[in-house]
Amino acid sequence: MVLEENIGSVRLITLNHYSKYNILNEELKIAIKNALIAAEHDDTVKSLVVYGGANRSFSAGGNYNEIKKMSGEAAERWVDGLVELYRTVLEVNKPTVAAVDGYAIGIGFQFALMFDRRVMAADACFVMPELKQGVCCSLGAAILHFTHGYTTMQDIIYRCSVMDAGRCLEYRLINQITDRELLVSAAIGQANLLAAYQRAVFGHTKRAMNKPFIQALEQSRQESKSMQKSVVASQVNKQGAQPSSLKIT
Amino acid sequence: MVLEENIGSVRLITLNHYSKYNILNEELKIAIKNALIAAEHDDTVKSLVVYGGANRSFSAGGNYNEIKKMSGEAAERWVDGLVELYRTVLEVNKPTVAAVDGYAIGIGFQFALMFDRRVMAADACFVMPELKQGVCCSLGAAILHFTHGYTTMQDIIYRCSVMDAGRCLEYRLINQITDRELLVSAAIGQANLLAAYQRAVFGHTKRAMNKPFIQALEQSRQESKSMQKSVVASQVNKQGAQPSSLKIT
Amino acid sequence: MVLEENIGSVRLITLNHYSKYNILNEELKIAIKNALIAAEHDDTVKSLVVYGGANRSFSAGGNYNEIKKMSGEAAERWVDGLVELYRTVLEVNKPTVAAVDGYAIGIGFQFALMFDRRVMAADACFVMPELKQGVCCSLGAAILHFTHGYTTMQDIIYRCSVMDAGRCLEYRLINQITDRELLVSAAIGQANLLAAYQRAVFGHTKRAMNKPFIQALEQSRQESKSMQKSVVASQVNKQGAQPSSLKIT
Repeated sequence: MVLEENIGSVRLITLNHYSKYNILNEELKIAIKNALIAAEHDDTVKSLVVYGGANRSFSAGGNYNEIKKMSGEAAERWVDGLVELYRTVLEVNKPTVAAVDGYAIGIGFQFALMFDRRVMAADACFVMPELKQGVCCSLGAAILHFTHGYTTMQDIIYRCSVMDAGRCLEYRLINQITDRELLVSAAIGQANLLAAYQRAVFGHTKRAMNKPFIQALEQSRQESKSMQKSVVASQVNKQGAQPSSLKIT
Repeated sequence: MVLEENIGSVRLITLNHYSKYNILNEELKIAIKNALIAAEHDDTVKSLVVYGGANRSFSAGGNYNEIKKMSGEAAERWVDGLVELYRTVLEVNKPTVAAVDGYAIGIGFQFALMFDRRVMAADACFVMPELKQGVCCSLGAAILHFTHGYTTMQDIIYRCSVMDAGRCLEYRLINQITDRELLVSAAIGQANLLAAYQRAVFGHTKRAMNKPFIQALEQSRQESKSMQKSVVASQVNKQGAQPSSLKIT
Repeated sequence: MVLEENIGSVRLITLNHYSKYNILNEELKIAIKNALIAAEHDDTVKSLVVYGGANRSFSAGGNYNEIKKMSGEAAERWVDGLVELYRTVLEVNKPTVAAVDGYAIGIGFQFALMFDRRVMAADACFVMPELKQGVCCSLGAAILHFTHGYTTMQDIIYRCSVMDAGRCLEYRLINQITDRELLVSAAIGQANLLAAYQRAVFGHTKRAMNKPFIQALEQSRQESKSMQKSVVASQVNKQGAQPSSLKIT
């Protein structure tokens, strides 16, 4: 599910789901986690780049038709699987760079936000279409609130719109735009820049930065599970909405 | 004090204080809360727009001459009334849009920040003139810190300046600028966009987003009361300032 | 180590380290703290401006070669000294303005972030080069996260790049750019603007704003000490990195 190669001291991890959209199914998530952990423990590797592959997408996220039906333990496993994947990226002590080509959608978008740097192909785009797809965006809200603040989070999640590279840069969702042909080399360049710092100094500083990020993910974990189960239950029962907390006085 | 009408499935709530500045007095605050709660519980309503009325202001806030003198229980009731109003907007599960014409000043500005979206007439403006008016801005600081971060909060509150539509967009205080004549229809358009999402999915996601916002308001409630009482007391006693926490060593 | 003069009701504190880079050594830090406290308690003073001196730098921070070797109690004292300096600026109830000329580097950059307003000479620059200099940036991360959010913090600390005035304004690190010749008068202008507000109203509002900032500094204090000691220890032992928290499964 992933291809691993070294380019100098950079471990290039290419997502290789059988669909070119790199749907983040269980198999791919586990393969990514294992590849990240292997790179973290390989002393020949100084930094990591994750890429979706040539003429493919970074990741179009999950299968919304499946997510919509997830209830009970399936919903819990789904949220746990995402939090574990996201935490794994955040806990890599070495520099990590996402090379975003094609689409970064929903949980693919969220996954990209876990990296130290994001390089984006000029014709790629980010989308957080959860609401339009009929799926709650609790974990996505917690992540975007943490990384970009309440107002930007609200704007991205409520609009569900396709964000091109210019808009992504304006929102500071990415660090660099590059021609698609130069995407991998630009990402490798960013990885090498960060890898030039002393490993202990970089790693300790990164840990301090990401500690509150991990706390934000953990705070959202239980809430995201409850919400997913509650929404699916309300749809099964054909209820339109949750009861309001506002009382008529 | 408010006019209520349905435009399709949008409940348009027009603030109708006898002054065209829509001063947020007790009567208007209660009328708004009741109108919001009624819309939340009316199944024919899918979203809400709050508007200040044609050739009127969204809300010029409170009467600073009265606020300056509020002490004791009056100060407590004042802060409680604001927090209750703000919470009510945040707790509406349906999409809410503020259509801002004329002025949004002080607590009128804060009130506007509670909505899911803000559409602004091209010649309208936001101002947070509390310090210039001799009034503390504790609740406003807590709100702007939550929605836009410490630095932007500090800038807006310390400058007390009139912010035109361009500046409001630059600061991401609003989501859309429109000609004044098109303000209501633009706000209805935004409301319909959000109402197109599944009601349970939107409502659950919104609740997750706004839960920390409500916590921030509650954290500020007691502090805002103490501060108001303390400042008014110091002015009665002709003290220029509170004692410094910095000790001469 | 500092020069103090009154310009109207503004106390102008000019850092006067024997080097024109205003290295923040113990002696200068104590002199600044004493000058701030004296101005806070002097009733003829309504606001404060801190300046690096003509043809000098605001502050080029610490001596990285010394910081790199600090371990044990020296590391603890170093962090405590910074937190005390930063807290002192935040706890001044009167308006404070930093007039930034030349360089604001590392802890000089951090120090500048404690002021209510920052005016910057058009040819000055900010840099946070800790990682490039082989020094952890734990306190800097906590500060920039608090003032500008996770993403901007990450960008500034990972890039270590020289930020000119245009970029500083874009990142909202400063409030005004001015010609170098007009720097002090522009800073005095900003100080007078804030001093025009009622002293009790300004002071109470500022305290409410800065209370969470002080909490963020205190939360980082212990972590920053541990990190500094841990990194220096790992360098003495020639370890390249801390053990990974990621387990091979």
